[in-house]
Amino acid sequence: MRITLLNPNTSRAMTDKIAVAARAVAAPDVEITAVNPDVGAPAIESHGDEILAASAVVELIEADLRAGGSDAYVIACFGDPGLDAARELVDVPVVGVAEAAMHLAAIAGRSFGVVTTLTRTLGRARDLVERYGMSRACVSLAGSGIPVLDLEDTSSEAYETIARLCEDAVAAEADVIVLGCAGMADLCAALAVRVGVPVVDGVAAAVGVASSMARAGIGTSKRDEYAPPPRRAALVG
Amino acid sequence: MRITLLNPNTSRAMTDKIAVAARAVAAPDVEITAVNPDVGAPAIESHGDEILAASAVVELIEADLRAGGSDAYVIACFGDPGLDAARELVDVPVVGVAEAAMHLAAIAGRSFGVVTTLTRTLGRARDLVERYGMSRACVSLAGSGIPVLDLEDTSSEAYETIARLCEDAVAAEADVIVLGCAGMADLCAALAVRVGVPVVDGVAAAVGVASSMARAGIGTSKRDEYAPPPRRAALVG
Amino acid sequence: MRITLLNPNTSRAMTDKIAVAARAVAAPDVEITAVNPDVGAPAIESHGDEILAASAVVELIEADLRAGGSDAYVIACFGDPGLDAARELVDVPVVGVAEAAMHLAAIAGRSFGVVTTLTRTLGRARDLVERYGMSRACVSLAGSGIPVLDLEDTSSEAYETIARLCEDAVAAEADVIVLGCAGMADLCAALAVRVGVPVVDGVAAAVGVASSMARAGIGTSKRDEYAPPPRRAALVG
Amino acid sequence: MRITLLNPNTSRAMTDKIAVAARAVAAPDVEITAVNPDVGAPAIESHGDEILAASAVVELIEADLRAGGSDAYVIACFGDPGLDAARELVDVPVVGVAEAAMHLAAIAGRSFGVVTTLTRTLGRARDLVERYGMSRACVSLAGSGIPVLDLEDTSSEAYETIARLCEDAVAAEADVIVLGCAGMADLCAALAVRVGVPVVDGVAAAVGVASSMARAGIGTSKRDEYAPPPRRAALVG
Amino acid sequence: MRITLLNPNTSRAMTDKIAVAARAVAAPDVEITAVNPDVGAPAIESHGDEILAASAVVELIEADLRAGGSDAYVIACFGDPGLDAARELVDVPVVGVAEAAMHLAAIAGRSFGVVTTLTRTLGRARDLVERYGMSRACVSLAGSGIPVLDLEDTSSEAYETIARLCEDAVAAEADVIVLGCAGMADLCAALAVRVGVPVVDGVAAAVGVASSMARAGIGTSKRDEYAPPPRRAALVG
Amino acid sequence: MRITLLNPNTSRAMTDKIAVAARAVAAPDVEITAVNPDVGAPAIESHGDEILAASAVVELIEADLRAGGSDAYVIACFGDPGLDAARELVDVPVVGVAEAAMHLAAIAGRSFGVVTTLTRTLGRARDLVERYGMSRACVSLAGSGIPVLDLEDTSSEAYETIARLCEDAVAAEADVIVLGCAGMADLCAALAVRVGVPVVDGVAAAVGVASSMARAGIGTSKRDEYAPPPRRAALVG
Repeated sequence: MRITLLNPNTSRAMTDKIAVAARAVAAPDVEITAVNPDVGAPAIESHGDEILAASAVVELIEADLRAGGSDAYVIACFGDPGLDAARELVDVPVVGVAEAAMHLAAIAGRSFGVVTTLTRTLGRARDLVERYGMSRACVSLAGSGIPVLDLEDTSSEAYETIARLCEDAVAAEADVIVLGCAGMADLCAALAVRVGVPVVDGVAAAVGVASSMARAGIGTSKRDEYAPPPRRAALVG
Repeated sequence: MRITLLNPNTSRAMTDKIAVAARAVAAPDVEITAVNPDVGAPAIESHGDEILAASAVVELIEADLRAGGSDAYVIACFGDPGLDAARELVDVPVVGVAEAAMHLAAIAGRSFGVVTTLTRTLGRARDLVERYGMSRACVSLAGSGIPVLDLEDTSSEAYETIARLCEDAVAAEADVIVLGCAGMADLCAALAVRVGVPVVDGVAAAVGVASSMARAGIGTSKRDEYAPPPRRAALVG
Repeated sequence: MRITLLNPNTSRAMTDKIAVAARAVAAPDVEITAVNPDVGAPAIESHGDEILAASAVVELIEADLRAGGSDAYVIACFGDPGLDAARELVDVPVVGVAEAAMHLAAIAGRSFGVVTTLTRTLGRARDLVERYGMSRACVSLAGSGIPVLDLEDTSSEAYETIARLCEDAVAAEADVIVLGCAGMADLCAALAVRVGVPVVDGVAAAVGVASSMARAGIGTSKRDEYAPPPRRAALVG
Repeated sequence: MRITLLNPNTSRAMTDKIAVAARAVAAPDVEITAVNPDVGAPAIESHGDEILAASAVVELIEADLRAGGSDAYVIACFGDPGLDAARELVDVPVVGVAEAAMHLAAIAGRSFGVVTTLTRTLGRARDLVERYGMSRACVSLAGSGIPVLDLEDTSSEAYETIARLCEDAVAAEADVIVLGCAGMADLCAALAVRVGVPVVDGVAAAVGVASSMARAGIGTSKRDEYAPPPRRAALVG
Repeated sequence: MRITLLNPNTSRAMTDKIAVAARAVAAPDVEITAVNPDVGAPAIESHGDEILAASAVVELIEADLRAGGSDAYVIACFGDPGLDAARELVDVPVVGVAEAAMHLAAIAGRSFGVVTTLTRTLGRARDLVERYGMSRACVSLAGSGIPVLDLEDTSSEAYETIARLCEDAVAAEADVIVLGCAGMADLCAALAVRVGVPVVDGVAAAVGVASSMARAGIGTSKRDEYAPPPRRAALVG
Repeated sequence: MRITLLNPNTSRAMTDKIAVAARAVAAPDVEITAVNPDVGAPAIESHGDEILAASAVVELIEADLRAGGSDAYVIACFGDPGLDAARELVDVPVVGVAEAAMHLAAIAGRSFGVVTTLTRTLGRARDLVERYGMSRACVSLAGSGIPVLDLEDTSSEAYETIARLCEDAVAAEADVIVLGCAGMADLCAALAVRVGVPVVDGVAAAVGVASSMARAGIGTSKRDEYAPPPRRAALVG
């Protein structure tokens, strides 16, 4: 089984970190590929960036399809950009990291708190909370103010900031922490030890969900909304 | 006051129809401009198209800003593509036609029904219903199966199909009809006569809402989420 | 086009202030009339007052209809008293100031906070938030403890109290402020400068919404609930 | 213990019917008084009527207070008119018949259906469903088209119409029926036999709830919203 | 009329306290019986205990049925354990103390706060809040950390802790207090005096609701879900 | 990795079927064990049965813990009986089949329909839909009237009934089908072919989710609610 992870920003360092996190949790028979676009946004930190990221996701899947396709796709960016458009393109599972993280967090406890990068992305995060049915389970959302690219090589100061936000969430009401950026994957284990509750990294969660769906023969429903588009729009460029 | 309408598809005929509808309801001191991209999707009928449309909205606003900017913007496509990204770019009002139509419909009656083009777009419409707080007011959503571009010059058969869906919605529970495509603007008056309840065209609604906000000094809040992005991503191309 | 504003309390000073606020934002072709009852409640600050206000709204519309009627009506009291009964009487738009303010605030940002007069009116405000579908958008409601009639001629102390509540709401989570009393209309511009986000006065919002609906031919749906009552009750007295 | 039932319409026949229904279910130590206004609406069938009914409720309570007051009040009209204003006036329980019927119906089964008079009153009924937290429990609302005053002396044809709507609700999904008019109190027992599920008359339910609260010392909270109004408005007339 | 109260823990002292509280509010023609299991959980403080409690409720009702049955049953434990299973067994009312307390609290004011024993039981309490439609009315839930059995003979320190939590809830937003343990029944009157708002004990509330339903002929609906089970499972032991 | 499946009814045939379904989708390094109680309910078809099932789940886990424990547990009954109590006992993942099926179905499409056994179990299913945040995603629930034990060896007539309910759900609005009984696991593949959309069996889904969580180190949060109970109740028998 081959799962392709789509990092929609142009940071190769981030892509490598994501691939490492994915391989660490994949079953022995799962092959992980991780890709990113050559041009586009270096980090996804605004709604404008989200559009670029969505375009990148579509283009990366189309390229992968031309090369034979994969058994499942993971969108490795916490805003789950391009998720619906990606589902139009394939009949295998397409899983967003925010989506997978929230679903598994809601099983690991009654409630979870999200700790993410810039506060300006919380509006998008709240939209996803609503869409995925998590408005009761998600009891807090906090932005650390740390830009995405600073996570390529996380400083101890940034780690401390994130850890304190996790502790605040647990002290308040959160049973579980969801890390709100694919670039935080490498902090997950240390944070879990520190805060004493499960800490969910979306990349690991999505690899698990995508492979579980593929094994069980649960693909993307092609009924109406996610059927192939009537007219394949020539994508930008 | 100048309001710029952004038709995110490449159909000039559709843009012209939208401009006519907008001017018909604008106050005497409001100037209407309507634009569309040169390249992109000819119609917005899939989630893939939505991404192209969102890119087009951003690019059209950037071009308008380079030319001096407008007092308000209307996104003239029922999926309200690029709404959040557009709000990052300006501090004047940005109004989507679905957004405006639903808000005014919820004032014209207790409940409304949406009648739109392809059923595959209903998922997106339901997302907007949730986002705009209309899950109680919106009592039905129906797709006519008519492609967007067939509305450039609506046949009597297509009109009949749409009119019957409006009648069905009213017979069920809808106090008001919302037309789910900017290209239906010219059908609005005849449908209102036929079904006997208010029929809301999003273009007319959005021109009203945008100009009302501009007159009252209510722009787009620049607090955090819609503040200028930290790093303006070089847009595609 | 003529819009009649219905101030349901007996304060002529308040009515004048409302008319000034309305005219400041009306398009050049819109004529504003503002009326209030001769007898009734001097201010609407309790549920008992709401009943008097609702009666006043009905009587004022009936008087206006006898004089030829208007193109739209605005109920200029933040509890939107008598809104449903008013809609039974006419087929033109009837817009409440709370209703209009909340709808436009939800377009100006992701979230808004309401700042109003006495805390005892917050129950009614929460009912309206629910009814208008604003339970996600409205992130705070605060009462200033300032009686309505003290707003006829606002002291600097009262202004300061209101301004601080606006600042608190913005510091917490509100992208936009909604002023919860028609009598605060004259404070709107100064508050917007002070708090740095859009501040929505319901009178201005409602004039905009009502005129937009009238221009677009969107009246009150007369289907069932708002159809003329089967037996016109002889109103009180 | 004395419970006063407030019929806000002017029909003495209806008041008598309500008193009979109340006495049939009251405990031996509960005294029932039923009153109605001399002037006002003969039936409450529109939003305009609701305002008259709310005024009547306030005036009837004020008259009762002048005569020494009661241990609890029941608003005997399915729209629960004047409920909030009545709660401002007293510290004993005030219970609406719709409110009590819905709360007890939600205990008698998972779900209930409401069967009422004119369909135009369903908007108000839906508002109450939301306010009382019954949006999950209430699975259907049906109007029979029978005017309230026809229930003063119910014809067999009217009874049949109502019974069939009850049967439809049960066949669909309703575990329990709520009768949506105080004037249907005398039909309750026969309908329960016919449809085979509990049928809840609001008058009986409200007498039970009001007396239970009075016995347990649970009055109306006088904290803020329901505290005595700052300035008792001179009521109309 | 005979109402049987089911205390699902093995504490006879608790059962006696519950019976006293019930008799204090019962109408003169209502006979109160209170029972508890001989073996089982001494207190219900975990989800594991809830299962034992649910079993006990079923067994106690079966024993009562063998002895002739009652006119109504009250489940005297704030988690309302076994409520659905009990409803399968009888066609008379079955009322949980959390259920009754929340319904009456929602009538006594706009909002209520729950004050209970261990914080670990709040998850269950929140589930009940959702199930009973109280998510808007219930504005706070607080655990005192006091084990259930410490309430057999409440110390002044425990009383003080509970009283302060009640005061905190009222200071925040709660119009009414709901006591979240049947063992707090004897504290109710003193707390109401201290905090100045209605304080609802579930035992008193449930006795009132159950007797009201029985008087009005409102039993448990036997339609489908609560019909006698197809195969009566031989209960454990 | 070892996952233990807990079938809470006494049917060994059902347990075997569940084990087969689980092994068919497990990764090569996952060992599946399936157990059932010796005494208890032969099928879980009522709320009374649910209590027995919950007891069985707790006892089966305790027995497994005495034998060394597992890396994850699956509760193999669509009502997810005993889920909360099980989570108190362990710090590894505990996953219910309804829970897992609904979460994966919500990823495979916008909406799903549940097809289950007896209609009397739909109340429980609706409770789970609410708890898991699926009230928007779940668009239909249908009972087939087929008793659980008839699924030990499904007749062609029973299969046909289930298949038609699946087709009805898809024809209405469901993108995905969720099978509402662990005993339907063997029908899943044939139904997916017949209805043309993903069909989710809870056993397969739960094995995937549980193993994904175990691989990613996401156990059950032991914060407060799911911490070990203060006093381990001696379980029944």
